[in-house]
Parts: sequence; structure tokens; C-alpha cells
Amino acid sequence: MTPRVEEILGGYGGDNPGTLTNLSRLLNHGRLAGTGKLVILPVDQGFEHGPARSFAPNPPAYDPRYHFELAIEAGCNAYAAPLGFLEAGARAFAGEIPLILKVNDDDVLLTDKDPDQALTASVQDALRLGCCAIGFTIYPGSAHQLQMFGQLRAYAEEAKRNGLAVVVWSYPRGAGLTKDGETAIDVIGYAVQIAAQLGAHIIKVKLPTAHIEQDAARAVYEAQHIPIATQTERVRHVLQCGFAGRRIVIFSGGAAVFDDETLLDEIRAIHAGGGFGSILGRNSFQRSKPAALKMLKAVMDIYEGAPDGGANL
Amino acid sequence: MTPRVEEILGGYGGDNPGTLTNLSRLLNHGRLAGTGKLVILPVDQGFEHGPARSFAPNPPAYDPRYHFELAIEAGCNAYAAPLGFLEAGARAFAGEIPLILKVNDDDVLLTDKDPDQALTASVQDALRLGCCAIGFTIYPGSAHQLQMFGQLRAYAEEAKRNGLAVVVWSYPRGAGLTKDGETAIDVIGYAVQIAAQLGAHIIKVKLPTAHIEQDAARAVYEAQHIPIATQTERVRHVLQCGFAGRRIVIFSGGAAVFDDETLLDEIRAIHAGGGFGSILGRNSFQRSKPAALKMLKAVMDIYEGAPDGGANL
Amino acid sequence: MTPRVEEILGGYGGDNPGTLTNLSRLLNHGRLAGTGKLVILPVDQGFEHGPARSFAPNPPAYDPRYHFELAIEAGCNAYAAPLGFLEAGARAFAGEIPLILKVNDDDVLLTDKDPDQALTASVQDALRLGCCAIGFTIYPGSAHQLQMFGQLRAYAEEAKRNGLAVVVWSYPRGAGLTKDGETAIDVIGYAVQIAAQLGAHIIKVKLPTAHIEQDAARAVYEAQHIPIATQTERVRHVLQCGFAGRRIVIFSGGAAVFDDETLLDEIRAIHAGGGFGSILGRNSFQRSKPAALKMLKAVMDIYEGAPDGGANL
Amino acid sequence: MTPRVEEILGGYGGDNPGTLTNLSRLLNHGRLAGTGKLVILPVDQGFEHGPARSFAPNPPAYDPRYHFELAIEAGCNAYAAPLGFLEAGARAFAGEIPLILKVNDDDVLLTDKDPDQALTASVQDALRLGCCAIGFTIYPGSAHQLQMFGQLRAYAEEAKRNGLAVVVWSYPRGAGLTKDGETAIDVIGYAVQIAAQLGAHIIKVKLPTAHIEQDAARAVYEAQHIPIATQTERVRHVLQCGFAGRRIVIFSGGAAVFDDETLLDEIRAIHAGGGFGSILGRNSFQRSKPAALKMLKAVMDIYEGAPDGGANL
Amino acid sequence: MTPRVEEILGGYGGDNPGTLTNLSRLLNHGRLAGTGKLVILPVDQGFEHGPARSFAPNPPAYDPRYHFELAIEAGCNAYAAPLGFLEAGARAFAGEIPLILKVNDDDVLLTDKDPDQALTASVQDALRLGCCAIGFTIYPGSAHQLQMFGQLRAYAEEAKRNGLAVVVWSYPRGAGLTKDGETAIDVIGYAVQIAAQLGAHIIKVKLPTAHIEQDAARAVYEAQHIPIATQTERVRHVLQCGFAGRRIVIFSGGAAVFDDETLLDEIRAIHAGGGFGSILGRNSFQRSKPAALKMLKAVMDIYEGAPDGGANL
Repeated sequence: MTPRVEEILGGYGGDNPGTLTNLSRLLNHGRLAGTGKLVILPVDQGFEHGPARSFAPNPPAYDPRYHFELAIEAGCNAYAAPLGFLEAGARAFAGEIPLILKVNDDDVLLTDKDPDQALTASVQDALRLGCCAIGFTIYPGSAHQLQMFGQLRAYAEEAKRNGLAVVVWSYPRGAGLTKDGETAIDVIGYAVQIAAQLGAHIIKVKLPTAHIEQDAARAVYEAQHIPIATQTERVRHVLQCGFAGRRIVIFSGGAAVFDDETLLDEIRAIHAGGGFGSILGRNSFQRSKPAALKMLKAVMDIYEGAPDGGANL
Repeated sequence: MTPRVEEILGGYGGDNPGTLTNLSRLLNHGRLAGTGKLVILPVDQGFEHGPARSFAPNPPAYDPRYHFELAIEAGCNAYAAPLGFLEAGARAFAGEIPLILKVNDDDVLLTDKDPDQALTASVQDALRLGCCAIGFTIYPGSAHQLQMFGQLRAYAEEAKRNGLAVVVWSYPRGAGLTKDGETAIDVIGYAVQIAAQLGAHIIKVKLPTAHIEQDAARAVYEAQHIPIATQTERVRHVLQCGFAGRRIVIFSGGAAVFDDETLLDEIRAIHAGGGFGSILGRNSFQRSKPAALKMLKAVMDIYEGAPDGGANL
Repeated sequence: MTPRVEEILGGYGGDNPGTLTNLSRLLNHGRLAGTGKLVILPVDQGFEHGPARSFAPNPPAYDPRYHFELAIEAGCNAYAAPLGFLEAGARAFAGEIPLILKVNDDDVLLTDKDPDQALTASVQDALRLGCCAIGFTIYPGSAHQLQMFGQLRAYAEEAKRNGLAVVVWSYPRGAGLTKDGETAIDVIGYAVQIAAQLGAHIIKVKLPTAHIEQDAARAVYEAQHIPIATQTERVRHVLQCGFAGRRIVIFSGGAAVFDDETLLDEIRAIHAGGGFGSILGRNSFQRSKPAALKMLKAVMDIYEGAPDGGANL
Repeated sequence: MTPRVEEILGGYGGDNPGTLTNLSRLLNHGRLAGTGKLVILPVDQGFEHGPARSFAPNPPAYDPRYHFELAIEAGCNAYAAPLGFLEAGARAFAGEIPLILKVNDDDVLLTDKDPDQALTASVQDALRLGCCAIGFTIYPGSAHQLQMFGQLRAYAEEAKRNGLAVVVWSYPRGAGLTKDGETAIDVIGYAVQIAAQLGAHIIKVKLPTAHIEQDAARAVYEAQHIPIATQTERVRHVLQCGFAGRRIVIFSGGAAVFDDETLLDEIRAIHAGGGFGSILGRNSFQRSKPAALKMLKAVMDIYEGAPDGGANL
Repeated sequence: MTPRVEEILGGYGGDNPGTLTNLSRLLNHGRLAGTGKLVILPVDQGFEHGPARSFAPNPPAYDPRYHFELAIEAGCNAYAAPLGFLEAGARAFAGEIPLILKVNDDDVLLTDKDPDQALTASVQDALRLGCCAIGFTIYPGSAHQLQMFGQLRAYAEEAKRNGLAVVVWSYPRGAGLTKDGETAIDVIGYAVQIAAQLGAHIIKVKLPTAHIEQDAARAVYEAQHIPIATQTERVRHVLQCGFAGRRIVIFSGGAAVFDDETLLDEIRAIHAGGGFGSILGRNSFQRSKPAALKMLKAVMDIYEGAPDGGANL
């Protein structure tokens, strides 16, 4: 147990030893073990966007075994996927990589300005498959948000009672927000706070822009001169919104199509701002395995080094 | 246990021995036992379309015993039906044919652009009637889809805990789709992926056309040159969407009124594309028993032979 | 146990001995005991139409004890009523007549083009009151139909587990149907099939007319030359829709105001068509007891005799 | 046990000894003990109309202890109130007066043409507070009526299983009715019937007018010459609708502002018509305690005497 | 146990010793221990208004440990917060300050004229974190009010069974009310009554204005000459609406931006009117800790002294 992992676990005093054990499994696995940083492979795109859009660019990825192998070979901290993908490999790869069962999902065959997700797996499923955590998506700002928060509450309570960790994908979206608002700095910070108050152990958000969505928030950002001009500053502010750095906040890799340097610059900003790591889906499994391993190595290299430009929070 | 059945069961490492036992019962029964191919007789038309439309063309089919006898004599792998039909024969034919209890159904006395189904039987019903599996219909693309996915999740969890297999009828339909979209190749592939991610062991879909419904999908199909011109290619792609062939995907027999050669050509395409078999309702029970047995024999002849034109996946 | 009752019970092989015991109680009680025919007294009109409209024409009928006495004196097979009416007499008349607890009901203080019913009693209520069966109304064609089917499923499962029989009032009605369609031959046949597939042991429908409601059904009725010109033919067809006569289908007595000969002609047609009997409410309790007993005797005389004009199915 | 109480309890043969014990507690307490008549003090106005409108006319009534004392000093059969009021006195006044826990309530901060109530207490609450009965309001005629009936069903089943009695406030109201219709004789009679069929032991309604709301009912009232011209006749008819006098039907005291003679005339009519008593809220606690005691004494004097003008049913 | 605390607990005779123990913990902790007065620190603003708006004015407040420390150093009676904030400190500060777990919350990413809250924690969460009470918000006047009351009922029943106290934030709001009506004297009094009738032990409301919202209420306020001209009079009336002072009613500190003298004047009015104390969020944690401690000391000084101008109720 490194001092940094011990320090991180110190923020979760409300949890039982079972949940702390699973959190430490996530933090102490793979190449970044013990650093307090996480790189997670998530593969829910087959459900969320459809199989051809997700896997045709790299056809071996149609096979559920591929993603277990990729996560293991790359030295990721964990692999996250819906029920079917985990069921298809949990026995063959038992004990080789921490698993996160995504327990709710949506598809794009029907879309709604107020998105919602179906409950697609249970805490009991996570336990029988040997997972360390459940993953749950919420859409703050959607007309369905209150119901989703309530569902998360029930799942989180059962997960914690059974010693699992809770990872929340907090994606602001819906009638309450403009398109730009979905990644506005005030909204992303708020999305982190909501997930943290709902009891999440690990929170995944998108990287924020400098846009401010809500007038009442803008007044405060301006009055208090909160620095949000650079990506590093924004990451630092988002971490602050995550209980002053006492909740693990990780960032998604953004859209699939951009060049690697842009991606790595984002990683450097996350690292510099004190972010806990990345969750990289489409940028991992939609390229050939050698290319993916190379990219993931570059990402982990950054997280393993000292952060550019600035201390942690 | 043939090597092929063993290979197929190998894809279901997440399941307990009870469920594997029932999956192997389905794969090892009837004339196609051990081949890894399935021909299933489904009779839910009485509920879905009404009794006269379903059974008047072959009046003995009004009697629930008729379908048990037909499935047994034809050497089908299994017989699938709603609660009432199974209750009416489960004792008399106990142990003679694997049974699949259809646990949700709809009728056409009221139709909706966003279809839904009523829950009409339970996992407990399936257990007390000696069934190997439950059958559940989902309508991806309907406004009710998220709720249906959640219902399936609950049924599947209970079924798996009790050692039953889960067969999903995945029928894209509803406000999210055009009429042509219901059988579009991207949509059928997506419907298979959704069912697989929801934890289905066996997935039933319609044969796809070469139409592509979603713009975002079309871009990928074109960019990646996914071959979908022939029925065999489309079946092969659909299988790929079913976890690269690691999920049992079977195809329905289509509308009742076409000549047998068209039907058999479809079977050949399914076989050539690596499909796991067929589920033939109206084309079986709406003709006289001798004619049905002859047709089913022809279908099984195809599945027993080497596939035309092309290896498996 | 007469051969005919044994034959009828043979259609219920999916049920446990408890339920078969209660079905045989219904078939072996009263004047028609052992004949395989049933005449049941139902009194849910007080709830469904209001007390004055129901009972003022024969004021002793306001008293719940009256209906127990009428059913016993007439030699009916069973008495069916809502919770309150059964609670008011179940102890005083314990063991004297099989009881059917109606577990859902509606009133006419508020009407809806898509009717629904309230759940007004439970399976546990039926057990504590010594009933043989529960009675449940469904409205195929109503916007609420899927929910009602699901409620029936839950009630029926609990009833069967506890050894009770399930009687379904299947009344097509709602936005999916025209007024004439509610008694159309295709719709009544469909209503019987739905109830049977949902696991009903006994199904109550209205007598059908020769009208055909659904175009897709009409095509089949015409192509297959299904005989539906006479009431006897229509009854025979309805029985066929009830699993080829393997489900007990009984008919309601229609509107209260017609002369007795019309009523008795209908009974003769039901008998000739192979119907299992009648459920006669308003035509029983809205006349004086002597008149009711006389009428019920005439009805039972018909059912006890050989059917006019034609063998059973 | 007086013969009259024994006779009344004889109507409840479906109930267990626990419930009969609690019904007899209600009938055998206070000044009217053993007469078969009931005067109950209900105080749910604080919730239903607000505290100032309810208690400012007699400020001691803000204190929950006041109502216990009033009911005890007046010799009422029981005191009925929502959870908070009973919790505030149940220990101090334990055993001194039978209690009825009102388990659903509404307020007037938001009103709806289709009223509904919130579930505000449970059967378990009634048991832990030592109550004899639960009180439940239904609104026949409201768009929420079917759901309310279903809620009552569940509460009543649990109450009866635990030996409690069930008191139903049956108030016709909502989109199905005109304002006049809420107290129309046909509608009040129907409201009593519905409550009785739902299994109520005691039914509370408003005094009816001679208005007839429903056309189909009017035809019967006229054809059968049902006497409804006087209040006594209308009470008698309402009792008939309550299972021919075999269910305890009591009447509310009407609006608060009228002179006492009008109120006492109503009591005389209730008594003459065979009514089982009164439930008097605003006319009790909105005047000073001496005035209230005087009024309640006058009411009980009437119920203790022989009814004016006419035998019971 | 001081006589005043004993007197207060005397109003809760319906509760078990476990709940009384936790109520006395709240009353006997901190600087006001034993006085019968309460000053509570609530920090749900991060969820309700967003983290930057809540904590940027005093950045140490981003850290969940800060609020525990502030409440302890100030000598507050209790600290109330959502799940995440309590989980983050419950172990480190175990036993140092009574905790109230806020179990429902809302955010401002989407607002509705009829507000509602998500269920965000459970009674079981409160027990595992060592809390004395749960906190629950209701919105009387919202279209969701009946459902919220029902949720509170279920939470309160479980809390009381487990020996916890129940604190209700009763905030009138929604389609039934004007903006001014939300703090109208009749409405605030009504909000207290509703919470009390629902079984709350402690009720939090806003300070009322002299506005009267409902016509039917105005008639009574005028007829009875209820004094509501001064804040002290209004507080006294609100206490009366809380079961004549037998329920603990506390007041929130109002908007964040006003000068301290205005705030202290309000505290003096609350004290003079017999109020049980204050719950001060934004006025505490949005200033530096020394300033907050100074302000809270001034508030407690007032509550510890004799009330200005007037005896208790």
C-alpha cells in the first residue's frame, strides 16, 4: 500500500472494508498500481452506438475476449463493460483484471431530448461475475434525472453493503441544458458534485470547456475570479468540485477522431490539474491492438511522470 | 457432447452449470442434436395475431397438443409457446421435447406505433412446467424499449439464478425507426448486439435486408466496406454483431405466404453465413402436418449438410 | 367423478392437484354436477352499475344473504361476487356453495373510452373466505390491456400456487374496437384465445354476433369458409378458439330486458355449439326468487338434455 | 354484549375475532355503548383545510391533547385523526378512547378537479399506537378512483389480517360528477355500495339530497318509485345500499356554519332512517368545549332515544 | 436532562425510547445543550445550487471535513448534509457532533414550476453512518406533493422503527402557489401543520411574511383577528400551527446576502416568538471560519438569553 493510495482511501471513511478492498484493487492493479492514477478501458459503445459503428474499424473488437486481452496487455487498472461482454469473458479471465459492470445503458435507435437509460444488470450480477465495482450513468439536467438519482441510490446502497465500489458516469444532458452547456465548466463541476453527494467513489466526466452555462453560476465565477482559462485550471477546478480532491475524478477520452497529440495534450492537462486518470474507450479499441497498446503506453507514461506545470491540489 | 456443442457452450463462461445443462439440452435434442444447429417451433401466433388467423388454415392446430406432436415428430430442438399452450401439454409430453416459455406477449386488438408487450408468465411458471428456457420479446426503437430492457434484465437474472436459459426475440420497431428500418442490416445487427449485451443466450431476429437505416451507421459501413450485398454476407455480419459468433443467433422464417424454395434459399443463406438455425412458426403449423414435416425435414437437411458457399466465421 | 368431468380435467395437465380439486368442485356441485356443464350466479352489478339499478327491481337482493340462498336453492355450480358480498355471507353459508371471488371491479361514476378495473381483493382474501376460484376481468382492446394482462398473470400465478382456479371475464372493449366490434365473432374468439393463453381455467365471454371487426381476420374467415351464420356455429367456433374445446368457456346472459324465450333460445344455441354453460346475473337476481328459480330450472333443463342440432366439437 | 351489538356484528361473518373485538370496542365505548349507535370525533381538518381555518375559532384546539379530552369528556365512541395528532396523545390517553388512524389525507394548497390523497400513515402505525381501526378516504368519480380503491384494498387486507377494523370515508367527487352530483341520492347510495363491496366495516358519507345524477339511475328510481323525498327516506335508502343495513353507515355533520337546530334535525332524520350515527368534526371542535359538550350531548340524546317517525329498516 | 428538554420530549409520547434518545442527543449537544433551543448547520447547497455558487466564496468549504469542524467548533446542535458529505467525514468525526442525513435532494440544472426531489439516501444509510435523524424535504403546493408525502411516510415509519428522529424541510412551492405565497403566513403555518401531521419531530420552515395567500384563510385571519403584523407575532402563530408549541419548529436563515444585524434581528424575533431555533447554512459556511464562528456565537448568545418582548407560547 503506497502512501498515495492510503491517502486516497482516507477520503472514503464512510465505507466498509469490503468496499475499500475493491477500491484498492482498482488502484493497485496494472502499470499505474500504487500511483493513485487510473487508466480504465470502457467498452459500452456496442450498446450505446451499435456494433458496426463501434467495432468495424477494428474487427477483432467484435469478440468480447479481445477487450479483456487489450486491458490486460496494456496494464489498465480495470475493464468496464455491460453484462453481456463481461459474462462472455469473466470465467476465462477470472482474476486477471479488475472488472466494472456497467449496470445501465441506452442505445441510439430512439433518441430523446431528455435521455434516460435502461437498467441492464444488477449488483447481484456484479457479485456473481467477480467484479470490483458497478458503473452507473446519470444525466443531470434531463427530465429523468430525479428518477435516475433514485435508481443510483438504490444500486449504490446495495453495492456498498456488498463491498463493491461505485463508479458514476455523470453526463449533463437534457432539456435543462444547451448543447454547449453539456461541457460547460460550471455544469461539469456541478455534475461531479452531484455524483459525489450521491455517494460515488469514482466519477467520470468529460473534459470541460471555458463556457459557463448558468447565469447564477457565472456571477460567482466572475466575482470570485475562479481561474478557468486553461484546461489545467479547469481540471483543477473540477477536482475541487469533487470534495476538494477527496473523490476520484477521471476524464473520458473525448471523440474518437482526433490525432494522438491532441489526446496526449489533454492527458497532460488532466495530470497537471490533479486529475486521477482517464477512461479511454473509442481511442483504444477502435485502432489495431499494437496501435492501441502504443497509445495507452504513452498515456500511462504521462500519468507515471511528474505533472507538468503545477502541483496537485 | 460433440466438439461443436462444447465450443458453443464455451462462449457462456459467465453461466452456472444449471443454465449450461439447459443450453446443452436445447443443442442436443432432436434430429440436429450435436450439430450446433437449432430448428425451433414457436407458436405464439394465437396470442399475437388471433386464433382464426393463426389456426384456421390448418384446424388441428387449434388444439394445443398438436404443436407438441409436430415439434416431436419433426425432431425440432425445442417448442416455444405462451403459458396457456404449454400448461395444456406440459404433463402429457413431459420430457419429450425441450420447452421455451414465452413470458411476454402482445395482441393486435389495439396497436401502437410504439409497441410493448404484457408480462404473461413468470420464471417460476417456466420452472414448474419443466421448461429449459424463457423467451422474451424486446422492441429496440420503441418508446417502451428502456422499460422492456429493464424487465428482461429482471427476468434474465431470475432465470439464470435458477439454471434456465434466456431466449430473446429482438424485434426493432417503433417511433425511432422507419418501416424499412425494422429489417435494415445496421438495425438487425444492433438488435443482436443489444440482446447479447443484455445477457441473452439465444437471440432471434428477422433476416436483414441491405437497407441501412441510420446515417451514422451508413458512414461506417461504407468507410469499412462491410460486405452486405448478399443474404449470406448479411447473416455473417449479423453473427459478427452477436459477439463474433459467440452468441447463438437464429432467424425467423419470415411471412407465411411464400413458396418453399424461397424459404429454403433463405435457410441456405443462413447456413452459409454461419447462422445457428431457424425458428419456424407460421411456415410449420399453418400447413397440414405431412406438409409441415416435409418442409421441416428439408430445412434440417440443409442445416445438417455442409454450408454452401463459405466457411463459418 | 364422471367420464365427462375427467375428460375436462384432462385438459388442465399443467395444474397442481389443489387446483384440479377446486375445478372439480365447481364441476361437481349443484344440479348439473358431473355433466360438464355449469350455471353460475354472478352478482357484481352493485359495484359495476350501482345498487339501485341492480337491486331495486327486486329489493330483497340488496341483502348479501339473498344471493347465497338463490344460488343454493337453484342448484347453481357456483356463486361469484366482489369482496364485500362474499365477506357478508361466507361464514353463514360456509361449504354450501362453491364461491368465486371477483378480485377486480369498476364502477360507472366515471367512464373512459379505455376501461380499466381496480384491484379490489386478493388471492389471500379468496383463501381466507374459502373460495374455489378467483374471478378477474380483462378488457382486450383497451389502452390498459397490457397492464391488465400483467395483473392477471400475477394473480393467476399466486392462485395456482395456492390451489385455486382462475376464472377470466374477457370483455373486448376500448379504443382499439368499434362498439359492434366488442361482440364481433373474430374479436370474441380472440378474447377467448388471449384468456386461455394467459392461463385461465374458465373463460366467460359474451355471445358473439356474425360481425367481423378486423380486416386481416375477415380475409381468413372468408378464405377458410369458417361457418359463423348461426349462433350455434358461432359458439362452436368460439369453443374452437378456446384450445379446441379444452378450456371451459361459458357465456353471459346478455342484457336484462328480454323475454325468457329469447334467453332460452340462446341457451339452446350455447348447448348445441358445445358451450360449457352460462353465467346469469341480471336475469336471475332482478326478478322475484320464484321467477328466478323457474328461469334457472329451465336453463338447467336445457343443459341437462342432449344438445339440439349437433354433436359437440 | 347487547343484542343489538351482537346483531350488528353478525353482519361481519367474514372477519376474524381480532377485528370483531375492535368493532365491538367501537360499539361498546362511551355514552352510546351497546346501543348500536356511534358518535365519532374526527379531526383531520388541520391537514385538509389548514390549521388557522380549523382551529383559530377555538384556539385550544391547536393542541393535540384537546381533542382526546373532548372526545373522552363527551363520551364519543371514538376519536379519528391523522398520524401526527394521534402520536401526540396516544401515550398520555392510552386506553381511554378507541382511536381511528386516518391513513390518507390531502390539503388545499393545490386542488385538482380529480382529487386524490397522499398515503400518510400505515397499518403498522395504527398497531403501534393502539388504534382500533384505520380510516381511509376514497373519491368515487375521480380519475384517481381505481388507484385509490386498490390502495384501500391493500390497506384493508393488512388491517383485517392484524385484527383492525376499516372505516371508509366515501366522498364522490371528480371529473365524473357535477357539483350537485356529489351529494345526489343515487351517488351517495352508490358510494356506500362501493365502500361496502371493497370490504369496509364502517362507511362515512355525507347526507344526500333528492337530486339524481345519473340518467340510468333516474330511470330505475322512477320506475321503482323509490321514496327519496324526505331526509329520513333518503337515509333509509342509503342504509339499504349498505347491504340492507348490514354495514355500519354513519353521516358527517355537514358544513360548520349552521344553527344547532338544523343540525339536530339532521340527526333526527338519520336516526329515524336507521342510520348508525354521526361523525362530527367542525361542529364539535370549532366551538368552545362547553358548547361542544352541550351539542354532543344533544346529539347523543337523540340517538339514545327511540327514533322519530318510523321503524328501522 | 433539563426540565425544558423533558417538557419538549413530553410532546413525543408516540415514539419509542430509541427515537427519544436521538431527539435528546440533538437537544443536549453543543453550546445550547439543555436550553431547548437548536442551531443546526445544514450544507446541502452543493447539491441544491452547485459547488461553485456554494463554496467559491469560502474555498475551504469545498472540503467535506470543513463543515464537520465548523459545526463542532461553533457548538452547533447538529450538522445536516447529503450522503456524500456525511460519508466523507462520519468516521473521522464519529461521535463529535449529532448528524442528520438529508435523504432527498434536487439540483438547479433543470427546474420545474412543480418542484420535486430525488431520493438520494436511505434510513439504512443514516444508521450505518451513526446519524441521529434523517432530513426530508417536502414541497406542499407542488403537483408532486402527494407523492412526496407518501415517500416521507415510508421513510418516517422506517426511521422511527429504528429509533431515529425525523426532520422535515417543509417548503411550500409549486403550481398551487404564487411566489409571494411561498412565505405567506397562512401557507407557512399550513406547511408546519402538514409536516407535524405527517409525523415530523422537527420542522424547518422559512420565516413568514404578513401576506395571506388563500382567500378562505384570509377570512379566518380577519374574523379571528389573528395577530401577524410583526415577525415575533408571526413566529408565535407558526409555533401554534405546530401543535401549539409541542413540535420543534426551527427557521432557516434566509438568503445569504444581508447584513448581520438583519439576521440577528430575525433571530431575536424567532426567540421572542417562541421558536426553537435556527438552521443556518449559507450565512455560516460562505464566510471565513472566524467570521462564521463570530456570527454563530452571536446567534447562540441570543438564544441563550431571555427572549425579548414576550413569554413563550
